[in-house]
Amino acid sequence: MIVVFGTVALDTTRTPFKTVERILGGSATYCSISSQFFDKTGLISAVGKDFPQEYKKTLESRLDLAGFVVMDGKTFHYDSTFDYDLSKRIENKTELNVIGTYRPQVPEGYRNAEFVYLGNNDPSLNLELLQQFKKPKLTACDTIEFWIKRKKAEVLKMIENVDCVILNDDEARMIVKVPGLIKCGRKLLEMGPRFAIIKKGEHGSILFSEDTIFPVPGYPLEEIIDPTGAGDSFAGGFLGHISRKDKLNLQTLKDAVIYGNVMGSFAVEDFGIRRLLTLNMADIEARFENYRNILNF
Amino acid sequence: MIVVFGTVALDTTRTPFKTVERILGGSATYCSISSQFFDKTGLISAVGKDFPQEYKKTLESRLDLAGFVVMDGKTFHYDSTFDYDLSKRIENKTELNVIGTYRPQVPEGYRNAEFVYLGNNDPSLNLELLQQFKKPKLTACDTIEFWIKRKKAEVLKMIENVDCVILNDDEARMIVKVPGLIKCGRKLLEMGPRFAIIKKGEHGSILFSEDTIFPVPGYPLEEIIDPTGAGDSFAGGFLGHISRKDKLNLQTLKDAVIYGNVMGSFAVEDFGIRRLLTLNMADIEARFENYRNILNF
Repeated sequence: MIVVFGTVALDTTRTPFKTVERILGGSATYCSISSQFFDKTGLISAVGKDFPQEYKKTLESRLDLAGFVVMDGKTFHYDSTFDYDLSKRIENKTELNVIGTYRPQVPEGYRNAEFVYLGNNDPSLNLELLQQFKKPKLTACDTIEFWIKRKKAEVLKMIENVDCVILNDDEARMIVKVPGLIKCGRKLLEMGPRFAIIKKGEHGSILFSEDTIFPVPGYPLEEIIDPTGAGDSFAGGFLGHISRKDKLNLQTLKDAVIYGNVMGSFAVEDFGIRRLLTLNMADIEARFENYRNILNF
Repeated sequence: MIVVFGTVALDTTRTPFKTVERILGGSATYCSISSQFFDKTGLISAVGKDFPQEYKKTLESRLDLAGFVVMDGKTFHYDSTFDYDLSKRIENKTELNVIGTYRPQVPEGYRNAEFVYLGNNDPSLNLELLQQFKKPKLTACDTIEFWIKRKKAEVLKMIENVDCVILNDDEARMIVKVPGLIKCGRKLLEMGPRFAIIKKGEHGSILFSEDTIFPVPGYPLEEIIDPTGAGDSFAGGFLGHISRKDKLNLQTLKDAVIYGNVMGSFAVEDFGIRRLLTLNMADIEARFENYRNILNF
């Protein structure tokens, strides 16, 4: 089983081509919707009473919601605008709402989960939650600039305590303070984790382990509609494949990175999780095989 | 035979770690020194009377210099500074010197050359020179922001008239005016060439042909000393491999892109062409094989 802890949000996303308001988003949504194609996934998150019934049904039909709570108050809301080439995002408004007081708990039924993903939450909460799992085979975390600037010590402690850290290139550089990404990856491993993944948006990702560096270019997409959630969808595909294989050997990890890129590439083809919801496993396997053919030389 | 037309320069390069003054550089130098490992290469370029004898000897020992002239005046000089993470370069001074009045000619012995590389020269000169070749099998060109801003029509005409355009991502976007690189590559093909290559620095490169997109991640380097010349070294490795195979099928092109990345990755391991001059073909083949192993999954 995979357990994902992160935000379930109502996102307002503005691109030069279209604006969508209060659609289902959040790090945990993208990750769990991606991972559930591969293996059973439980979601730990909180929303407010305003959370639309339709979205609740979407989550219910695909996920285990034993760790999902509806609190008094409003759902976490994030409003942002992308620039003309969808490479930069400007935050317009962040309303934490129920997330501001939410104290997550791992339900009894999740404590034996083998695979755990801690989204870009407050690192102190991530650390607290991590203690509640019995003996996971692989724990992974993400973080963002907001926490690196405000809670650096906790971020470092979190990285020290997970098996795998999955970061964007800018955040990796911010933590390690080395400009070159290859050195960055190695330094992340020295901080504790067995594996590090640096995500580079359209340029793909790089997996690091003690004896391997596996760089993967981005899947060549003709059109990107909404880059939101690509990184969390990557994490979902990555953990999902590892969970269904239940192995941590090099071949499984490399394939998992490709599945991560596959899920990220699907996610950006429409707003929110719309594209992900249209998929079946055959679509995912077909893109995986296509990836292999494209990269083959 | 490969013929390379471009600048031979004296470069002053400043990085946060070291400054080197008036070292051998220029687009044609990087490209031709890279391609000569694979096949016989002729250089069309001009320097001034101040060009050091030592650099002349380096070129002489590796290249055919029938198209190389020493003019009255001083050698093209470029002075630039890299920022702390070597990703941005600031121009301090550009002295065109002899390049300002040089009118290149294709020597009689080069007119039957099969493979031609036109560096980031004035596109009008590139077009003029192109006419002087009889029936090359593959012609390739590069260009830079300077020319796209000043001579857009000539840049477009040049692209229309070559078989392969090799550009950085920023320049590709500037020409095509589409943000997404995959669309960018396709649009470049619509402008005339059979092949387009978009170079992405440390993120590798993407090859486009009518029926193929081949993205390659950058070779994972621990340390980059001087990014100067990576793109031209790429072009040298790319054309070099195609020339030695004397084929234009898909497999040859894909391998050529890898060899291009290999030569670019070597070039940045020291200032100027120093690292390239230490290489032998076995080093190049070893890195090519290592690339294949790294990318294999």
